[in-house]
Amino acid sequence: MASADTTHQQGMAADSQQLEAYLGSLPGIGVAPLWESLADLVPVEPRTPDVPFVWRYAEVRPALLRAGELVSAEEAERRVLMLLNPTPSVAERGGTTSTLYAGIQLVLPGEVARAHHHVASAFRCVIEASDGAFTTVDGERAMMSPGDLVLTSNWRWHDHGNDSDDPIIWLDGLDVPLVNFFNANFFELYPDQRQKITKPDNFSTDLYIHGRLNPLSEPRADKHSPVINYPWRETERALRAAIDAGAESPVDGVIFEYTNPFTGGSVMPTLSCFVQAMRPGEHTQARRRTPSAVYHVVRGSGSTIIDGSEYRWEEKDTFCVPTWAAHEHINGSASDEAVLFSFTNQAVYTSLDLYREEVIERQG
Amino acid sequence: MASADTTHQQGMAADSQQLEAYLGSLPGIGVAPLWESLADLVPVEPRTPDVPFVWRYAEVRPALLRAGELVSAEEAERRVLMLLNPTPSVAERGGTTSTLYAGIQLVLPGEVARAHHHVASAFRCVIEASDGAFTTVDGERAMMSPGDLVLTSNWRWHDHGNDSDDPIIWLDGLDVPLVNFFNANFFELYPDQRQKITKPDNFSTDLYIHGRLNPLSEPRADKHSPVINYPWRETERALRAAIDAGAESPVDGVIFEYTNPFTGGSVMPTLSCFVQAMRPGEHTQARRRTPSAVYHVVRGSGSTIIDGSEYRWEEKDTFCVPTWAAHEHINGSASDEAVLFSFTNQAVYTSLDLYREEVIERQG
Amino acid sequence: MASADTTHQQGMAADSQQLEAYLGSLPGIGVAPLWESLADLVPVEPRTPDVPFVWRYAEVRPALLRAGELVSAEEAERRVLMLLNPTPSVAERGGTTSTLYAGIQLVLPGEVARAHHHVASAFRCVIEASDGAFTTVDGERAMMSPGDLVLTSNWRWHDHGNDSDDPIIWLDGLDVPLVNFFNANFFELYPDQRQKITKPDNFSTDLYIHGRLNPLSEPRADKHSPVINYPWRETERALRAAIDAGAESPVDGVIFEYTNPFTGGSVMPTLSCFVQAMRPGEHTQARRRTPSAVYHVVRGSGSTIIDGSEYRWEEKDTFCVPTWAAHEHINGSASDEAVLFSFTNQAVYTSLDLYREEVIERQG
Amino acid sequence: MASADTTHQQGMAADSQQLEAYLGSLPGIGVAPLWESLADLVPVEPRTPDVPFVWRYAEVRPALLRAGELVSAEEAERRVLMLLNPTPSVAERGGTTSTLYAGIQLVLPGEVARAHHHVASAFRCVIEASDGAFTTVDGERAMMSPGDLVLTSNWRWHDHGNDSDDPIIWLDGLDVPLVNFFNANFFELYPDQRQKITKPDNFSTDLYIHGRLNPLSEPRADKHSPVINYPWRETERALRAAIDAGAESPVDGVIFEYTNPFTGGSVMPTLSCFVQAMRPGEHTQARRRTPSAVYHVVRGSGSTIIDGSEYRWEEKDTFCVPTWAAHEHINGSASDEAVLFSFTNQAVYTSLDLYREEVIERQG
Repeated sequence: MASADTTHQQGMAADSQQLEAYLGSLPGIGVAPLWESLADLVPVEPRTPDVPFVWRYAEVRPALLRAGELVSAEEAERRVLMLLNPTPSVAERGGTTSTLYAGIQLVLPGEVARAHHHVASAFRCVIEASDGAFTTVDGERAMMSPGDLVLTSNWRWHDHGNDSDDPIIWLDGLDVPLVNFFNANFFELYPDQRQKITKPDNFSTDLYIHGRLNPLSEPRADKHSPVINYPWRETERALRAAIDAGAESPVDGVIFEYTNPFTGGSVMPTLSCFVQAMRPGEHTQARRRTPSAVYHVVRGSGSTIIDGSEYRWEEKDTFCVPTWAAHEHINGSASDEAVLFSFTNQAVYTSLDLYREEVIERQG
Repeated sequence: MASADTTHQQGMAADSQQLEAYLGSLPGIGVAPLWESLADLVPVEPRTPDVPFVWRYAEVRPALLRAGELVSAEEAERRVLMLLNPTPSVAERGGTTSTLYAGIQLVLPGEVARAHHHVASAFRCVIEASDGAFTTVDGERAMMSPGDLVLTSNWRWHDHGNDSDDPIIWLDGLDVPLVNFFNANFFELYPDQRQKITKPDNFSTDLYIHGRLNPLSEPRADKHSPVINYPWRETERALRAAIDAGAESPVDGVIFEYTNPFTGGSVMPTLSCFVQAMRPGEHTQARRRTPSAVYHVVRGSGSTIIDGSEYRWEEKDTFCVPTWAAHEHINGSASDEAVLFSFTNQAVYTSLDLYREEVIERQG
Repeated sequence: MASADTTHQQGMAADSQQLEAYLGSLPGIGVAPLWESLADLVPVEPRTPDVPFVWRYAEVRPALLRAGELVSAEEAERRVLMLLNPTPSVAERGGTTSTLYAGIQLVLPGEVARAHHHVASAFRCVIEASDGAFTTVDGERAMMSPGDLVLTSNWRWHDHGNDSDDPIIWLDGLDVPLVNFFNANFFELYPDQRQKITKPDNFSTDLYIHGRLNPLSEPRADKHSPVINYPWRETERALRAAIDAGAESPVDGVIFEYTNPFTGGSVMPTLSCFVQAMRPGEHTQARRRTPSAVYHVVRGSGSTIIDGSEYRWEEKDTFCVPTWAAHEHINGSASDEAVLFSFTNQAVYTSLDLYREEVIERQG
Repeated sequence: MASADTTHQQGMAADSQQLEAYLGSLPGIGVAPLWESLADLVPVEPRTPDVPFVWRYAEVRPALLRAGELVSAEEAERRVLMLLNPTPSVAERGGTTSTLYAGIQLVLPGEVARAHHHVASAFRCVIEASDGAFTTVDGERAMMSPGDLVLTSNWRWHDHGNDSDDPIIWLDGLDVPLVNFFNANFFELYPDQRQKITKPDNFSTDLYIHGRLNPLSEPRADKHSPVINYPWRETERALRAAIDAGAESPVDGVIFEYTNPFTGGSVMPTLSCFVQAMRPGEHTQARRRTPSAVYHVVRGSGSTIIDGSEYRWEEKDTFCVPTWAAHEHINGSASDEAVLFSFTNQAVYTSLDLYREEVIERQG
């Protein structure tokens, strides 16, 4: 005679068998039980596959120059080393973080990276350049110098050229993971290698960059900045003025966002770009926020503590900070400023009401 | 003596070896060549993993009721059968399409789906309900009837109850894949099973749904609609009036978007909801567009031709149309209207400048 | 020998003479001293020429019907008695207040108020109407019933007709003083008496007024509401629902703003329209605000205390409250609700950052 | 026996008497017939009381310096000669045009124009200044040089000082007629002569004027620009760059709008400021538009043809163009550029849907 316990166990076993049979039947009608994956789909806090990483310019630069010997610009379409997150599922999608793409691109003297356009929006933050390197966007050549931020927004024709004697190297930033998540990319080659030049060199910079003045002779667009090149010489002036005026945020030092003259908002609807300067020896407060970020070291050296681990960086290195990871920056020099360029999807997070940030105690 | 050809081949072999060695060295420094994956990352046209599918209510309903016997509301937190896209990589992320989640939920008489909130935004389109079924959102009970659209936006407390004698069944729509792509979800349980009721039943519906009037006694919010329940009785009136007035779009028949009273835009920043009616025998023009869509058949039967294949649907079925897939709807009845509810991320695509659509010749 | 005093007086007299001579010379070069009028041009608090006034329907109606005997619709173009502020400088500019125009219009059975359009925006709040009275706007006839709010926005063709057996009488509200201040009016007659009907009757009401749904078949406009008629039957439902739900503001009772479906904001950029209901015996809190207001009594009777004086009103009366005047409403009935329609330039004040309000102690 | 004619005449006389009696009765109930003033209230085209005028700096400057001898800064509160439109009804309201106020202000070495604030928004366009002249706004001293545009927006504390050895003279622009039309002004004296300095000199210029960068350390405001001083050195750079790039509009030459970094729109919601340069000998196309304008000659000489009459201007002169008046500019020099600063209410006209413009054939 079975004990109550045995009966109960048999009952549970029967239940369990029934449940198993039931679950086995579900794929046949295209459904699955939410209760088995609720915690995964709706986590208590952001869970990101991304891990922090520092890409060393001292390593990337020689590899890039070697690529210049092994692969022609024509073969490559764009000769770029992607900075991939160490997590394979992110890297497979071309992710520096889950939502951001960064790469380092090389154009050798005399080369042309031929004209094309795509829905994915891009910018270039120039690392090395001599007089004569340029990007052409919708008929305007933007001459490129170190530190310049050059935009090639959604669906604008662009090609790159290098009439100088030195390689030009820059950081590419794109919204490729985001555009691909939305399955929204289109791509087209221009009929020729180089697009036709229809405007004076640096036309949009000349028209928009001085004195917060908007030229009424130009069409008023909206979501994308009309500025092709935000030149470093102006950025440097802004940083200098803000440092002198003591305009600091405790979590970021002196920090600016590059803006769209038509809206005062982010330069592109999908990408927000920033530049910040930290005083000699500055150690910022820690903060975490929902958008991940890619930082590029324009000048100086130091480290960033990310979720308790310290990541050292040198001039021209690039590093990433995952979603919701606590991070604080340390300028490692007692005498020189450190300047970081960075980009995120902040405008997207804000417009979709997904932005959260938390200023926290300094990490242990 | 080696011929020129042999030398050339040897040269190529040497090159190839060098290139291979080079490529092998790249992972060590965290980079990869863009030129090997450019076509994947920047495709010529949207490439989606999603495939069309019809979830049959005749199959899903019995499975859901069976779940009602096997799994308690408490065990399940939410007793839902997810409608998963047949493509495993999409289904793994809880996707009905790459960017949209849909499920069918059951609350039995007397049950409570306990109070919680999360960043992911949700709505419920009611399929079956008797008097006494409700959703409580931020202190307001919205009594639910078939066809009602009930919102539980980003971070709003919500729980579900059923004081009727019949099961309540609805279609859940969420932005879970999107919020998880951005790694931005947070989740919290309410301290009690049910939240406290602080407002009269159907308060927001009463205040906002009549005559395009906004109550000045309420705080003016912004991105999320203040309306909890868009009741079917009003939707039916709107459809009837538009049908009588002959207000049709050739690609959608009579179609409306549910709007946020504060903006005139989508009900939530991440989800756009629509309802459309097609005349007896109507066969709409074909169209494709970048956002994917989930359709739910409120009434009637017919079929949708998606990229050349016909998908038949009956009342209460749910089906999806992938990104950029050509689609045209056919009302299969010669005597009755067909009514489709649908949702997409259109507001996101538009704000990020990713929206494209193309009206095309009828598919072969 | 002159005393010091005498010298001083002589000096002052000389100064005064010099100053007078100086001031006399200024008009010749087109200038005037600011210091003589600073306090007038930049007053410490708003100074308005407007005074409160109640226009009695018991007086205005017979006068209007008498106008119907003396002046034909053709002769009058519009047979309207303007409700002019008692202050002549305001009245001269057609002002009910400095910035608002109101009038009472009559269209007799069989008459046509011929088609024209102008930049000044108008609405009509219907006081008396039987089946068959209408306003045609851009090809759509809006059939008019008591309480309906009918818009004829900036530059829209409009004509009025009356196919009923009774006179139709309504309150006209316009932004004429504002448009004339900006010298921005244009006016044009339609080639015929009546414009061509191109849409079903009440088309925009049918399409926009139900369930917060926007029809995607229609073009999306922006600043002006696409709704011609906000029908009273819906307004009544809204008031009823809000009263039942107890949604009250202490200064206004139950109050709603009529909204533009495209923006959730005011129905026209220059005019904001409201409707409010006060419980039997309700006595609202006092408030003052920068925009002046015109109120029309839809139902009930009572009084409004304006800057300490009580102004009694009956059903269908119209009264004005000047800029920055303290005002509180009293429903004089112990058994019936009082319903007030009102309009202001609130949207303008808000967008120009000129809006201020102050809730104050009840006036002595 | 009376003839038919006589009877008809008697009938008309009787009608006329009746009408007269009727009209005489209307003021008693506070109304007036619209049909007697419709054409005045709703004119076919804008009718402005404004007339064109040129205020000669050669005349205004000596008068202003003479005021410096006759009236102290303390007595005057602000020592300003208002540039009044010749039409008395406009001049009485302090109007340079119906909607714009301009004046020329003098602050002598050592003087203080004491701190106050008001709802009316103002800017100063500097005509003469030496090192040491400044305006303090909300704790920030903006040091002023010729050509600088200095904003003192709605309700911001401001005072002026002059620590140089020379008089400082500037053009004041205000929205006083507009704010007074809306009866919306408030005014308050600061407790002390000078407000407290809380920020480094030129703080907002330093933070906002370079490279289209927005400082994230500052609060994000909205309708009013955070920039106190738009310095001429940057404006000059912008003009130079645009001239070199050939960015011209046919009706305005090279023209820029000063913008609000938070919106990309006008610097203040009520006032729009512009600067334009015309090539030697340039003769622009004619245009008319609904907003009136005040122009100030920064550099050069020439003339403007306004509704067929030519108005000559020299450096530092100020002139006005009425609403809807055709106007075209002629740079009278064959060798030098002419630079005009101007301001209008364009942002208001646009937001209220009152803006119209027409490019027309050159005037006879």
